[in-house]
Amino acid sequence: MDYVKLALELHAKNRGKISMNSKVPVSSDLDLSTAYTPGVAGVCLEIAKDPALANKYTNRSNMVAVVSDGSAVLGLGDIGPAAAMPVMEGKAILFRELAGIDAWPLCISSTGPDEIISFVKNLTPSFGGVLLEDISAPKCFQIEADLQDLGIPVFHDDQHGTAIVVLAALLNSSKLVGKKLSECKVVFSGAGASAIGTAELLIEFGVEDIILVDTKGAIVTGRNNLTPVKEQIASKTNKLKLEGSIFDVIKNADIFVGLSTSNLLSSGNIQSMANDPVVLALANPDPEILPEDAFIGGASIVGTGRSDLPNQINNVLAFPGVFRGALDIGASKITSEMKISAALALSDLVTEISKDKIIPHSLDPRVVPAIARAVSDSWH
Amino acid sequence: MDYVKLALELHAKNRGKISMNSKVPVSSDLDLSTAYTPGVAGVCLEIAKDPALANKYTNRSNMVAVVSDGSAVLGLGDIGPAAAMPVMEGKAILFRELAGIDAWPLCISSTGPDEIISFVKNLTPSFGGVLLEDISAPKCFQIEADLQDLGIPVFHDDQHGTAIVVLAALLNSSKLVGKKLSECKVVFSGAGASAIGTAELLIEFGVEDIILVDTKGAIVTGRNNLTPVKEQIASKTNKLKLEGSIFDVIKNADIFVGLSTSNLLSSGNIQSMANDPVVLALANPDPEILPEDAFIGGASIVGTGRSDLPNQINNVLAFPGVFRGALDIGASKITSEMKISAALALSDLVTEISKDKIIPHSLDPRVVPAIARAVSDSWH
Repeated sequence: MDYVKLALELHAKNRGKISMNSKVPVSSDLDLSTAYTPGVAGVCLEIAKDPALANKYTNRSNMVAVVSDGSAVLGLGDIGPAAAMPVMEGKAILFRELAGIDAWPLCISSTGPDEIISFVKNLTPSFGGVLLEDISAPKCFQIEADLQDLGIPVFHDDQHGTAIVVLAALLNSSKLVGKKLSECKVVFSGAGASAIGTAELLIEFGVEDIILVDTKGAIVTGRNNLTPVKEQIASKTNKLKLEGSIFDVIKNADIFVGLSTSNLLSSGNIQSMANDPVVLALANPDPEILPEDAFIGGASIVGTGRSDLPNQINNVLAFPGVFRGALDIGASKITSEMKISAALALSDLVTEISKDKIIPHSLDPRVVPAIARAVSDSWH
Repeated sequence: MDYVKLALELHAKNRGKISMNSKVPVSSDLDLSTAYTPGVAGVCLEIAKDPALANKYTNRSNMVAVVSDGSAVLGLGDIGPAAAMPVMEGKAILFRELAGIDAWPLCISSTGPDEIISFVKNLTPSFGGVLLEDISAPKCFQIEADLQDLGIPVFHDDQHGTAIVVLAALLNSSKLVGKKLSECKVVFSGAGASAIGTAELLIEFGVEDIILVDTKGAIVTGRNNLTPVKEQIASKTNKLKLEGSIFDVIKNADIFVGLSTSNLLSSGNIQSMANDPVVLALANPDPEILPEDAFIGGASIVGTGRSDLPNQINNVLAFPGVFRGALDIGASKITSEMKISAALALSDLVTEISKDKIIPHSLDPRVVPAIARAVSDSWH
């Protein structure tokens, strides 16, 4: 099916995907006097006395800003903020339709980390949370880290949304192949935001043998010219200090997680993995290896990012429920514990795990409530 | 009627006044594949090739940000951004309900002019216009001036919304009392954003004899400690270099415009004005003088900011139509010509001018289309 043609028609016909609506009528003098002046002044004064009342008298605690500078959009790269808008409108409607959250896209023209940080700090009076989206590495790490004490959840979807869904898929996959996830050797192709975010969550979960590989080879402490973020992940991974390309490092791995480029691997590479290998080939729009080729190489389970193939690893499984849960209890951040609980809840929804069913469907209506409850319950 | 009580109930019941809604369904795999990935990538790429297509494929050209730092909210002063939110949600729903514009409130925590300017600059990829609201003087002047070349209209409502509605009211008032507006002596009480914005527009229109009075007396060139903005307006007004208080300067004035404090004037002050004086006493919630007292003093026409009295001078008469007109033609700013045209269109809607009817009702459905057309037609 020609999704692009359909998408262009859909977007042109509706002029985008979002609208703002009034929850109250404005058709009489009485409406004006209560929704607006003079009555509204009394509402303002109540909030001025006790700012917490903003969550009673305004929609703040149900509003999430979707912020991007358009520097790393989907697999398209740095296409800029105007061109990023359709994706951010898409995230906003997913928030609305799946989790009842009033999200608003803010694609901004600044690209420097300090300006982005300063922009997001300004949003706290108006929003109950911020989803950072499609901001390029390495600045995305600093930006998110610097915003963790804002008092509202700030969550970089590319890192943590991916991490939650991959962890859920790996929990069920390892169960199906009879291995303990924490004892698996996990090899990542890619060392961008999503790979590093996912590796970090696997480490928090207890996976000990992880190796990340970027275009220059395996990431290992002391390698030349590592960025600070890669240096940091190197210090927590690749304990045997393996060197070489992805084709070397993938040998004997139990799990491959591809967050890199299309058509990277051959059936032979899969054949070199350990027995019953699990392959998550998540490059978009085309995976690192097509499922049919991975199966020829002996893969037990294959997941991709594609909606037309089984086992779609899609961030939409995570962010709506995560924010629903955090907003419901007024959590000030999303902790590792909350992310792991979300992944466990997501994996638990698959009652009959099979090689074609390691993760719920993206629109499974049980997903948001299950993740929201897990996130709420694990907030200290 | 206890508007505050009703307003508190209304806001609590609905948890504020705004929601975000999806214009497209998200309930099938096909929906996901066209509104979101993979189809959306094709939409992004079209906009990346030609940024003007953002106005075709996204809602940008119908979206207006309502930005405030909460430093000068209604007559309440510096109550901060959280407490300003109910007013900005109110502006947003008025945009939506009266002019079909998708407005979103952004109450920000920065109060410095440079930070506010930088914040607003970041909004251009996502919004077709910006309404600055309830930002204190004198910083509001610098902020708006520095943002006039953003490529989208940036309009400080307190200045120009007030200016348009006051000019419209004065056009009809002077017609009714048989004077030529440009030849009237106009005295302002107040020299804040709305007084200076209104005085500037009257000057653009051709009124020559204007005097502004602040708490220290008449504003006149060379007076001690004038801010740069007051120095500038002084150079264009008070050509006779009158000094003294409002009680001195109001003598022989044809028109009084109060944008200051409640209960300032007595009937005797009105009596000291020229024949057939026009009194716009716009302090909120209580005017500079009650209409009954102004009439005792001989006022021909009295307008206030109150919805329960005749001749309500309300900004809601201006900003929805001004932005509707500007967005419809993709104007990059709101010029003086557009503001004067808006005022003329607004005044023309009153077909039978009387002392109780110098301005249309705030919810008159003819207002937005008439102003929108006037604004569109006067864009060069």
